[in-house]
Amino acid sequence: MSLAERILAGEIRAAARLMRDIDDNLPSSRDELRRLFTHTGKAFLIGITGPPGAGKSTLVDQVTATFRRRGKRVGIVAVDPTSPFTGGAILGDRIRMNRHADDDGVFIRSLATRGHLGGLSRSTADVANVMDAMGMDIVIIETVGVGQDEVDIVRLAHTTLVVMVPGMGDDIQAIKAGILEIGDLFVVNKADRDGADRTVRELSFMLEMNHYEESSWRPPVMKTEAQRGTGVEELVEMVESHHDWLKQSGEIDSLLRDKQGTLFQLLLKERLFAEVWGPLQKSGAYDELLDAILARTSDPYSAVDELLAKRLQS
Amino acid sequence: MSLAERILAGEIRAAARLMRDIDDNLPSSRDELRRLFTHTGKAFLIGITGPPGAGKSTLVDQVTATFRRRGKRVGIVAVDPTSPFTGGAILGDRIRMNRHADDDGVFIRSLATRGHLGGLSRSTADVANVMDAMGMDIVIIETVGVGQDEVDIVRLAHTTLVVMVPGMGDDIQAIKAGILEIGDLFVVNKADRDGADRTVRELSFMLEMNHYEESSWRPPVMKTEAQRGTGVEELVEMVESHHDWLKQSGEIDSLLRDKQGTLFQLLLKERLFAEVWGPLQKSGAYDELLDAILARTSDPYSAVDELLAKRLQS
Repeated sequence: MSLAERILAGEIRAAARLMRDIDDNLPSSRDELRRLFTHTGKAFLIGITGPPGAGKSTLVDQVTATFRRRGKRVGIVAVDPTSPFTGGAILGDRIRMNRHADDDGVFIRSLATRGHLGGLSRSTADVANVMDAMGMDIVIIETVGVGQDEVDIVRLAHTTLVVMVPGMGDDIQAIKAGILEIGDLFVVNKADRDGADRTVRELSFMLEMNHYEESSWRPPVMKTEAQRGTGVEELVEMVESHHDWLKQSGEIDSLLRDKQGTLFQLLLKERLFAEVWGPLQKSGAYDELLDAILARTSDPYSAVDELLAKRLQS
Repeated sequence: MSLAERILAGEIRAAARLMRDIDDNLPSSRDELRRLFTHTGKAFLIGITGPPGAGKSTLVDQVTATFRRRGKRVGIVAVDPTSPFTGGAILGDRIRMNRHADDDGVFIRSLATRGHLGGLSRSTADVANVMDAMGMDIVIIETVGVGQDEVDIVRLAHTTLVVMVPGMGDDIQAIKAGILEIGDLFVVNKADRDGADRTVRELSFMLEMNHYEESSWRPPVMKTEAQRGTGVEELVEMVESHHDWLKQSGEIDSLLRDKQGTLFQLLLKERLFAEVWGPLQKSGAYDELLDAILARTSDPYSAVDELLAKRLQS
């Protein structure tokens, strides 16, 4: 039996195995994903992002507990773009210590950047697809940070939560500007801290400047204390309201289209590069090319042009 | 006269113009960069990264002032991956208010992500090359965050400073793990705050676990209060020590090779994708393909395979 068939039959170990293969970027994993694809599209994907120190992991833990009480199965993809070299072991360990470890209705997978060639957003999408096909009702994608990788990653979700904490310092304006447009819901966590109400007011004010259409979704700003569970129930209800709004407004159609488009583009980018990069390195041509660039007899711009021209000829 | 010639003749306006063209990804900008390339390789590139709120901009300001007192010309590339939608206007404004605005020996350029196709690391490298060719002695690349984009960006520098602040919360372990290997120097800024010494000790402890070779550079952990300028002089001296070490140890050769390799790969990735993406969108094939994926009669994995196979045939 293929891994895909075993996964569809409910075998957890097969899912874990396929996720490892995805991480290692084995070509066989693409065949399995292809087989699983018709079984995707049922899960509701929630993206959770925000700067380091905002308490996202604790919040994910609480949100998961709330969905579990409602009888939903929850998959969690914990993406850690901050650990390009350690392979995410630290985040992985932290996650594994959480209280859902013995719950069959929760499946957790950590992902981390593996070096320079990227592919993290793509493997996140792949893993979310496996969880979807496994029958998880909810898939939570948690990611640290607010850079381009994170934007790609949250584009895979139906609903995106941006988590902030009171009083984050000078760069807060810059962060806010970037995240205002990716958040469907804003959460000021650690709301017992000084300045929580001010952060809520500032966020609300910046959101109001966005000039929403009559029919658009207006992102609410909510307060939580994830550590104690305060505000989590309300947060989950608001997430479900957003989901309802997506369906009623018909926005879900363009969102699903965007989601598939994102995955397609990520896959395409990765494959196109791999196709050229492999032979270039193996043949020694890459080394020669760098020698010429370092000697200033060539330059990176011409080297790429020449390579593309040569490919067209052959 | 070409823009490149005007830049080499010292015309600032021509440099600003070319940087705009780079931002807009005009093909003509590649020709200009090619012309400038033989004039690059003289500037010393310093990368400065770290989480939001660490006070990087103030530190860059102070480091710049210190280099100016030593008679060096300084270029600053302020990269803002947190503003994918606003085009970095906010960071740009903040930067423009700084005290070097009237100083001819300082040239500042802000860059921000423009949507999903990336290219930010590549345009950062391009802009740094222009500043290098303009005759800037020092080029500082400042970036917010610690994700994959930032790793790509700091790979462009000779010396990388990672800026932290005391007591940053739960995710600090995860951040540290990711940045330990990219920093040549660690700076605990806002060192007048509680917990500064503890953060210095923790960082030093984690660095010691790295088991450096006898001959390797051991990243120091330094304290600054950028707001008041405390510790900045010492920091700049340490940056220069690292530069000296790079040259004396011969490490600079592999570093320069990596730097050029990074730029080449970024360019290649971008061009390969653009080559396929443009026609795919224009012809309407992309829309058809998404229709099929959404109807589950195709899937993203097969769609990419088919596209690549078709390209091979034609």
